[in-house]
Amino acid sequence: MQDLEKIVSLCKRRGFIFPGSEIYGGLAGTWDLGPLGSELAHNIKELWWNHFVGSRDDMFGLASSILMPEKVWEASGHLEGFADPLGEGQRFNLMFKTEVGAIQPEKKAAYLRPEIAQGMFVNFKNVLDTMRPVLPFGIAQIGKAFRNEIAPRDFLFRVREFDLMEFEYFVKESEWEEHFEKWKKEMWAWIEQVGIDKNKTHELEVPKEDRAHYSKRTIDFEFEYPFGKKELYGLAYRGDYDLRRHMEHSGVDLRYTEPASGEKFIPHVIEPTFGLGRTILAVLLSAYSEDGERVILSFPPKIAPIKAAVFPLVSNKENLVKKAREVYDSLRLPAGKAGHTAWGMGQIVWDDRGNIGKRYWAQDEIGTPWCVTIDYQTLEDGTVTVRDRDTGKQERQKIAELDKYFKGMLA
Amino acid sequence: MQDLEKIVSLCKRRGFIFPGSEIYGGLAGTWDLGPLGSELAHNIKELWWNHFVGSRDDMFGLASSILMPEKVWEASGHLEGFADPLGEGQRFNLMFKTEVGAIQPEKKAAYLRPEIAQGMFVNFKNVLDTMRPVLPFGIAQIGKAFRNEIAPRDFLFRVREFDLMEFEYFVKESEWEEHFEKWKKEMWAWIEQVGIDKNKTHELEVPKEDRAHYSKRTIDFEFEYPFGKKELYGLAYRGDYDLRRHMEHSGVDLRYTEPASGEKFIPHVIEPTFGLGRTILAVLLSAYSEDGERVILSFPPKIAPIKAAVFPLVSNKENLVKKAREVYDSLRLPAGKAGHTAWGMGQIVWDDRGNIGKRYWAQDEIGTPWCVTIDYQTLEDGTVTVRDRDTGKQERQKIAELDKYFKGMLA
Repeated sequence: MQDLEKIVSLCKRRGFIFPGSEIYGGLAGTWDLGPLGSELAHNIKELWWNHFVGSRDDMFGLASSILMPEKVWEASGHLEGFADPLGEGQRFNLMFKTEVGAIQPEKKAAYLRPEIAQGMFVNFKNVLDTMRPVLPFGIAQIGKAFRNEIAPRDFLFRVREFDLMEFEYFVKESEWEEHFEKWKKEMWAWIEQVGIDKNKTHELEVPKEDRAHYSKRTIDFEFEYPFGKKELYGLAYRGDYDLRRHMEHSGVDLRYTEPASGEKFIPHVIEPTFGLGRTILAVLLSAYSEDGERVILSFPPKIAPIKAAVFPLVSNKENLVKKAREVYDSLRLPAGKAGHTAWGMGQIVWDDRGNIGKRYWAQDEIGTPWCVTIDYQTLEDGTVTVRDRDTGKQERQKIAELDKYFKGMLA
Repeated sequence: MQDLEKIVSLCKRRGFIFPGSEIYGGLAGTWDLGPLGSELAHNIKELWWNHFVGSRDDMFGLASSILMPEKVWEASGHLEGFADPLGEGQRFNLMFKTEVGAIQPEKKAAYLRPEIAQGMFVNFKNVLDTMRPVLPFGIAQIGKAFRNEIAPRDFLFRVREFDLMEFEYFVKESEWEEHFEKWKKEMWAWIEQVGIDKNKTHELEVPKEDRAHYSKRTIDFEFEYPFGKKELYGLAYRGDYDLRRHMEHSGVDLRYTEPASGEKFIPHVIEPTFGLGRTILAVLLSAYSEDGERVILSFPPKIAPIKAAVFPLVSNKENLVKKAREVYDSLRLPAGKAGHTAWGMGQIVWDDRGNIGKRYWAQDEIGTPWCVTIDYQTLEDGTVTVRDRDTGKQERQKIAELDKYFKGMLA
């Protein structure tokens, strides 16, 4: 567990992740993302969305509500079955319950969704009606889910409030196996892209007795966390269970109509699920290394919270500092751009504190891929040094070509 | 209210916004964003984040938890004071309550945050300790908040689950007025940038008797909705109320230390607040127009859910369709890129259904700024027509220069 403790400590010390409501002693199972953690999470979500949604034309986005009424959870089976054992023979439902509305008859029970899938099933007909998609297609969303875990533990692994990235991929029953295999491969491609150590990630065929009764096949992607080999992602074949149940319980026709034949049927579903917190944890564990006293987080540059740091070699030479400020300003995100430049989402930071070696190490520890230093030679020939986080090597680059250089590195 | 009904209907019909849990009769005050609505919301959030956070170096991001313990809301005053009148002399607290933990003594009350500000105050010390910022600086976040409104109404205006975009800007007390004025200007710049009609937006100086007791000045930005002139955004000077209360209640020192003098004091706070749902509603109302039978949503291109649609002139000529597919593929987001290309977040869509005039109108109605049509001339000289949504004018552009052309239009 030494690695985990080091990472929890680093995350707290450098502004990645703090215990939720910490000044009041915390609320177990909640974690707040700090300035660096929120950027890292944002970058991972954007990368995921582009990988599975934005770069495809068979995928439709959604952002459904967290609060959903009791009827949804009756239909999904969560009201009855989503429980853990608690003491002798007792079962404890893991859904957070609340009440919506002030007075009868409007007042009623509602639940914070314990998974984001039901929002996609409940909106299946809306997507059919508005987008007129043809099978196979998917509905995707990223959002919060809540589970009242009896014993939250292991940092971001078992928590009460978490983000899921997930899609439901609707197929003809006869084609489920080929799509299952296709998504399994895509999940491995994602694992590699986001920087999770493939050697520490393993497929587990979930045996029949451990699968939900409606699932003919489920794979867990397990990761070697310091506290054991445990679930990272899931890939489940859910059959037509969810749509069928919602059709029965709501009385609304949720069948798909095959355009060529006019045949109506309930599609079957392949569901890849990705927890954001577990992704962050596996990415941190995969990226962490030590080189003597130096700590390095080798994030893939695309998800690094800070893309580059800009330093004047020393902070007491006015002309160096002035030139460094120019370089810094030229690399920053311009205001008024739509979210992001081709640079990706990253911020550029400035540092002129302490000596240059300490500044390099401080950036290595938060995973900044490049440090740009303005030195005396800069004033003569308009070049700067660009230091690579992972190799420690420095190259001289022309200031005028820095933007292009980084774009290339991030492509 | 005719405009509002038209927009609600358009939003449902074209996949922007659906009632939450609709197949079960809905859950009042919840709305689900469909494929186009979730893209629009995403683009607005990215634009906001870049405007107020990414393009600045005095702003620190955060993503704090929705679940917070009772102590937080005792300190903030919400437990006692966040209530609406209900019947004779009764008061109804608008916070959603739930229980966290399974068994005593761990089991305790928690509340879904009714505002996102407290997450930033509670983490103030964490940001100070990890980022070592110098006044003035801000802490920003985008996230969900929940209020058990007695009477949710007016589409996205008064709801029970909503997203806020907000920051707390910490200043010296003596400088609050200048920062208040600065942020007021920046809010107007945002209103213009996101495409909200400035002529329908008005500042309201909130009179003393309507302000929170700790606020020396509050401005509401009001918008002329079809149901009346009501709040769009807020700008409040909160003094040192929140940090002082949390310091008293938690016993943790939340003072800032002035680096030069070593003086310790509690900073004062300017808080600009932006509701995402109200932004979407005001943007839709500002963008909506009719030209005879044609409906147009004139979104600023940066926030449009679809940036461009690609059409073959007719769908039964194989060589036209093949060429159009090539153009379509060349414009799409490549997989593996960090979130977004320089294009922004937008998707490119394909349509070959019906006649070309109907396809143009269908895109106008969802606010797609450009339609690219591949026609017979394309096969001869490699040019396509690019039709502008707002003017209806068509220009011929070389396929090879389309990417550059759109980048320029989106810059």
